[in-house]
Amino acid sequence: MSSPLEAIIRAAATATLDPDAVPAAAHLLSDEFVSEHVERYRHLHAHPELSSSETETAAYITARLGELGLAPFAVGGTGVVAVVENGDGPVVAFRADTDGLPILEQTGLDYASSATGVLPSGEAVPVMHGCGHDTHIVAGLGVAQLLVERRDEWSGRVVLIFQPAEETAAGARALLDDGLWLKAPKPDVVLAQHVGPAPELVTFLNPGNMASLADSWRITVFGKGAHGSQPEQSIDPIVQAAAMVLRLQTIVSRELAPQTPAVVTVGTFHAGLKENIIPETAEFTVNVRTPNEEVREQVLSAIRRIVAAEATASGAREPRIEEISRFPRLYNDPGLTPGVAAALEAEFGAGTVISMPMGMGSEDAGLLGDAIGVPVVFWGFGSMPVSEFAGGMPAANHSPFFKPNARSAVITGTRAAYAGILHFVGSER
Amino acid sequence: MSSPLEAIIRAAATATLDPDAVPAAAHLLSDEFVSEHVERYRHLHAHPELSSSETETAAYITARLGELGLAPFAVGGTGVVAVVENGDGPVVAFRADTDGLPILEQTGLDYASSATGVLPSGEAVPVMHGCGHDTHIVAGLGVAQLLVERRDEWSGRVVLIFQPAEETAAGARALLDDGLWLKAPKPDVVLAQHVGPAPELVTFLNPGNMASLADSWRITVFGKGAHGSQPEQSIDPIVQAAAMVLRLQTIVSRELAPQTPAVVTVGTFHAGLKENIIPETAEFTVNVRTPNEEVREQVLSAIRRIVAAEATASGAREPRIEEISRFPRLYNDPGLTPGVAAALEAEFGAGTVISMPMGMGSEDAGLLGDAIGVPVVFWGFGSMPVSEFAGGMPAANHSPFFKPNARSAVITGTRAAYAGILHFVGSER
Amino acid sequence: MSSPLEAIIRAAATATLDPDAVPAAAHLLSDEFVSEHVERYRHLHAHPELSSSETETAAYITARLGELGLAPFAVGGTGVVAVVENGDGPVVAFRADTDGLPILEQTGLDYASSATGVLPSGEAVPVMHGCGHDTHIVAGLGVAQLLVERRDEWSGRVVLIFQPAEETAAGARALLDDGLWLKAPKPDVVLAQHVGPAPELVTFLNPGNMASLADSWRITVFGKGAHGSQPEQSIDPIVQAAAMVLRLQTIVSRELAPQTPAVVTVGTFHAGLKENIIPETAEFTVNVRTPNEEVREQVLSAIRRIVAAEATASGAREPRIEEISRFPRLYNDPGLTPGVAAALEAEFGAGTVISMPMGMGSEDAGLLGDAIGVPVVFWGFGSMPVSEFAGGMPAANHSPFFKPNARSAVITGTRAAYAGILHFVGSER
Amino acid sequence: MSSPLEAIIRAAATATLDPDAVPAAAHLLSDEFVSEHVERYRHLHAHPELSSSETETAAYITARLGELGLAPFAVGGTGVVAVVENGDGPVVAFRADTDGLPILEQTGLDYASSATGVLPSGEAVPVMHGCGHDTHIVAGLGVAQLLVERRDEWSGRVVLIFQPAEETAAGARALLDDGLWLKAPKPDVVLAQHVGPAPELVTFLNPGNMASLADSWRITVFGKGAHGSQPEQSIDPIVQAAAMVLRLQTIVSRELAPQTPAVVTVGTFHAGLKENIIPETAEFTVNVRTPNEEVREQVLSAIRRIVAAEATASGAREPRIEEISRFPRLYNDPGLTPGVAAALEAEFGAGTVISMPMGMGSEDAGLLGDAIGVPVVFWGFGSMPVSEFAGGMPAANHSPFFKPNARSAVITGTRAAYAGILHFVGSER
Repeated sequence: MSSPLEAIIRAAATATLDPDAVPAAAHLLSDEFVSEHVERYRHLHAHPELSSSETETAAYITARLGELGLAPFAVGGTGVVAVVENGDGPVVAFRADTDGLPILEQTGLDYASSATGVLPSGEAVPVMHGCGHDTHIVAGLGVAQLLVERRDEWSGRVVLIFQPAEETAAGARALLDDGLWLKAPKPDVVLAQHVGPAPELVTFLNPGNMASLADSWRITVFGKGAHGSQPEQSIDPIVQAAAMVLRLQTIVSRELAPQTPAVVTVGTFHAGLKENIIPETAEFTVNVRTPNEEVREQVLSAIRRIVAAEATASGAREPRIEEISRFPRLYNDPGLTPGVAAALEAEFGAGTVISMPMGMGSEDAGLLGDAIGVPVVFWGFGSMPVSEFAGGMPAANHSPFFKPNARSAVITGTRAAYAGILHFVGSER
Repeated sequence: MSSPLEAIIRAAATATLDPDAVPAAAHLLSDEFVSEHVERYRHLHAHPELSSSETETAAYITARLGELGLAPFAVGGTGVVAVVENGDGPVVAFRADTDGLPILEQTGLDYASSATGVLPSGEAVPVMHGCGHDTHIVAGLGVAQLLVERRDEWSGRVVLIFQPAEETAAGARALLDDGLWLKAPKPDVVLAQHVGPAPELVTFLNPGNMASLADSWRITVFGKGAHGSQPEQSIDPIVQAAAMVLRLQTIVSRELAPQTPAVVTVGTFHAGLKENIIPETAEFTVNVRTPNEEVREQVLSAIRRIVAAEATASGAREPRIEEISRFPRLYNDPGLTPGVAAALEAEFGAGTVISMPMGMGSEDAGLLGDAIGVPVVFWGFGSMPVSEFAGGMPAANHSPFFKPNARSAVITGTRAAYAGILHFVGSER
Repeated sequence: MSSPLEAIIRAAATATLDPDAVPAAAHLLSDEFVSEHVERYRHLHAHPELSSSETETAAYITARLGELGLAPFAVGGTGVVAVVENGDGPVVAFRADTDGLPILEQTGLDYASSATGVLPSGEAVPVMHGCGHDTHIVAGLGVAQLLVERRDEWSGRVVLIFQPAEETAAGARALLDDGLWLKAPKPDVVLAQHVGPAPELVTFLNPGNMASLADSWRITVFGKGAHGSQPEQSIDPIVQAAAMVLRLQTIVSRELAPQTPAVVTVGTFHAGLKENIIPETAEFTVNVRTPNEEVREQVLSAIRRIVAAEATASGAREPRIEEISRFPRLYNDPGLTPGVAAALEAEFGAGTVISMPMGMGSEDAGLLGDAIGVPVVFWGFGSMPVSEFAGGMPAANHSPFFKPNARSAVITGTRAAYAGILHFVGSER
Repeated sequence: MSSPLEAIIRAAATATLDPDAVPAAAHLLSDEFVSEHVERYRHLHAHPELSSSETETAAYITARLGELGLAPFAVGGTGVVAVVENGDGPVVAFRADTDGLPILEQTGLDYASSATGVLPSGEAVPVMHGCGHDTHIVAGLGVAQLLVERRDEWSGRVVLIFQPAEETAAGARALLDDGLWLKAPKPDVVLAQHVGPAPELVTFLNPGNMASLADSWRITVFGKGAHGSQPEQSIDPIVQAAAMVLRLQTIVSRELAPQTPAVVTVGTFHAGLKENIIPETAEFTVNVRTPNEEVREQVLSAIRRIVAAEATASGAREPRIEEISRFPRLYNDPGLTPGVAAALEAEFGAGTVISMPMGMGSEDAGLLGDAIGVPVVFWGFGSMPVSEFAGGMPAANHSPFFKPNARSAVITGTRAAYAGILHFVGSER
């Protein structure tokens, strides 16, 4: 969470952002609508599924969309798409992503997840909606209902896309590979939104880059095993990989300009089965965020260089590097973004739309538009009462303590989605 | 493997150590005996079990001892003890350890292990007799048979102890806690032996320390999790633990005298589930070998100091340190050791007994004597034809490639055990 | 050099920025004026002096100002101030800094420096005008001559300040401590400029922060000396300090948000006299750049934490930290900056004024205004023909290869200074 | 100081080693002799000179030897040689080394050194007799006097060699290159001794290696300089060299067997002139101790590998490695050593001769014999009253606090030298 938002949040936390004070709120979402979607949210939150394994989630979405009279269909495995048709007009695609994360939830919520899943490696892990995709689903279902119920307010077609596997950068690609834009009408614009630890009724976006390029690699370091008492018989892969981890820090600290926003995170490190055996190998993963292709190439090249050289320093052979995922750019169309921002401000009130990117996060939503040359607009939305910011910043996405307020998230997410979509297909457009 | 043995081995590899040239070999072990025990060895090698889980192994040992007319009984869980009685005379205890290791065997032998086991953590792992305890068992069974069949050559009592869990330093302690020396006669001496990657018919021992003190610790490093793109929200436990790993190297390189033989090995390092999530914690294990209590305290204290300080450097709270195991001294009685060495030399020929310790290995056998104030003598024995040393040193204990020769190990291990025991209870003593 | 300027430079390098095409150039600086000032520049460049030792430089400046009929006086040791009076009107202060750097010049210029100086530590070092302050002096002398010769174009008073010791952040403070604003009229605005490796006729500035806050610390690490063969008798201060250097990298890589521009540089590291003696101490210096007070405090606190903890990890006592210098903010007044930018654009042509800060550089010029509550405007100016950018970026400030073009620097620096000053006191203001 | 000596010292410190209780002391050294030589010691201690600059020291030695009627001559620059002739018999060479060290003495003695010297680099440094070579000189002068005055006790020739530059391994080589064994009679044995922080009247030696092989290298690391605020323009040589320093620790901790006594010390580290300039280069020195040629090659090869790889990791070119010095073996002749040990024991009493090497120290004395195929015997001698060991080990050689007791050193050093020499040329031999 970058400092501009923090500044806004601090201001907000001492001011009053009153839901009831915002006129549009009164009639758009009925108490019944909100209650029902809060329940849906609690259900979804308690039942997260890992990337590319969203089968129950897909079934749930399909059922709810079917109840609205829509004709949802599967795309890309566990993806679900439905088209709401309403006469002539633009075609808007709206994407909600649906997958959870291998995190052990520690929110203490009564609807906290106790789910488990199985990683591609075969490892069983706890699962949590730690990035808030459950709020995306429920807002997607909510906006579907609004679009169906309020056809007098708009005309055109809306392609609702419930996309799996955003966290692994595999979902958007899977939808495209499965012919998304052959099975659904090609849109004039692709919209998407993401929840964050920001106050309710607040949204944020800016023209240009909204998220970083992101690359994840798995690096296998080769040593030579031996008894723990005989280091001279070994090439210690743990010392070797630890040296790599420390040396990788110098890419950001020494090789990039201070003004260049980039991250090199080692997210996992695994080696060895027994304390008195020096293992044969160590494996770690790196996750890289860069602002553009040029920096991306520079950082990935530096990682390759450092990893290979540290292996040489250990007298070991060159490590194996495998790509886990590659997130594309998420580029908000400069022509369309100001209009969407204005629509969000009209919906939530003056001062609620913050001009800022998502920070260093990554997103594969942009690919859905980039792949067919269609502009994209993506925004963030808040999910917590202002009062929760009094004592400092609450836990953020990917924390085991990340805890959107159900009611705040439903109201802000659904209204933002509806406002964004109606900016393009609304009767007053 | 320390240099004295290497020198001997190199000499041996260019000379001839002829089994048939050693007179005692001719009549002691019949061809039938050797063939049968080679088969037993192949069976045991193919069916290793993890420390404290040696149930099938214990059943196998019990069955074989029963076939000899002995009355084996269980001690300390999966331990098996049998007393061979033969009139008046000294009481000798002879210990063989029985557990395998969580190593994926890569010897390519037709009787290689494909066994799996479950670690205390619940993790399923491959298992291998990677430290050669299968040779110890088969030599223990062999010496039992010799003792039973050749009662005219000795008098007294021999307590045969098949001890579990040597690798975790839990076995000797478990036997003692279960009343070993109440259930079996208290001995005048405790003997034990260990296989190594040395030529057949070679043994090695020295008075005083035969093995290092060894301590294993599990260290849990506490950080603060966050999304991989937001290091500023995190306290990165992987960078923290990597810094610890590198700093721990300086204990041996800078804090101990060059003449002080000590090892600090980080044998495992585990952190993180997903490449784009900075985890909350990292866990690594250290295995420490030291020559005496003074150095042991110095090294353990340095580890505590470094680990705590590196946590502070990261702004993290103090790591948790848990003891996994603690190996006691293995001290060969200076009065008795020369006699045992002479007996081994008489058995295998001049020049076959090498004066050297086991190196930096650890052993809990010493505890069986230390606990009751009884002297201990422990020796190593070779297990490979001299020809295997022509191209350099073969793979050592705890390597996935460690491969004693079945016939060499049976002959050398059984004869060494019998010679060592008869040194104390033999008619010619 | 941050990317916006690089983009401009690349564009410029393929376009044509023609000095003769800019009308104002024709009459403002005569060929004679340019030739004379190029000679002055070559003289100054060949005779750099270290911070706070600018005695010859001050004498030279004083002589030249005296030749113009001005009455220069010394302030703050080696500072020189002259006031050009011209009737009623605003008071403008214009600052030029005068010190060189301890760098061994490697430009190969025929007027390259072979000067040496003595650091406060007593060490003799080579000296170079490696940051281009010689261009500042010559532009200051040039603008003094223009102000004297062209009194019909302006009215008011201009305080010309030739400030020593900018590189050590001691100069502005020294002037103030010596009563600068009691000895010279208190100005309405403080102006200053800085040369960079940018094309001639290009200037750059923006409202708000123009430079980083900068702090420099000297850190003395305490170990325990011993013979090189007896590390166990020592606490090795070199290993300790090396561990600090690597750990300090994690402040930028892990503790700050990727969007926060900050630098932690270890610029010097000195320890030991003889290869076989482990020394008692090691000393290194850090130079820190931060965008604001909050980040400054965070980074300095992290340095203190890491340095203390790494000492503890070594079993050493806490290092000594001494402040070498502390650069204040350099804050361009948001109200006045656009006007100065417009004046520079009027002078040099459309597209020549780039909106950007200096990058991560530091400057104490801001203090001259901040200390008396007077607004400051500071800009950068280019110094090299466009053709020099064809093959990539030329060497930058503080490089031993940094090489402004004498003629380009004289013309751009003098004209920029005159345009900036006349924006406030010019007849057409 | 290795543990055997510590054990002896601890025993000694609680026992009584009484100088007056040792008969030989009574008549050998008169009170006047001791007082005079204590004065000489204090003079020499107060006037140390750096290696290869021992001009005043050589003059002093020459004067004293001349006063004895000997005919000293210069060899190898600042070396001084004198032959004491006394009829037929063996030829014994006795070497005393004469150089001081660049250490700032901190003993607080009233005759502490305040001398300075100039290193080959041109740097001015303090100088101290930090390795006790002043005790060697004074014992050499003392033994010369005894040999001259007590001709009835011996016959043969003694070549007294006052050798410069032992600390840089250049002195013995310089003597040989200057034709030492052409200018002086070729000896039957070469003797030498070295002071240590051991009790007076104690000596120590053993057959075989008495000291390590030692190699010193200067390593120049190449980076790319830049302003401290622009790390992206630089290749930071300080971070690069710091990474090397930490990685070099793994040679001892991970690449050598725990039983292999070896040291890799980084004794100096110098980089940078100014805190805000990233320098072009860094320079550090390594000092390596190894027990034999095989380990020496392994360690030096590992240093080369690590240094080159870490440069590659930084994207820098390969560092430059230059040899500073290379100490040969110091090998005590196994045939002659027991006799010398017996002679020392006869001189100082039972239990005063300890069987141990010097530890990891290095010495070029061995070269004087090795170069001409003549056996060498070298011993250490104590220099402090037993009472000084009550509170623990006193400061050792190369410490700024190393403080032999003048009287203890004179008595022990002179008597040991005389006993050692007379073992070969004494009338009772």
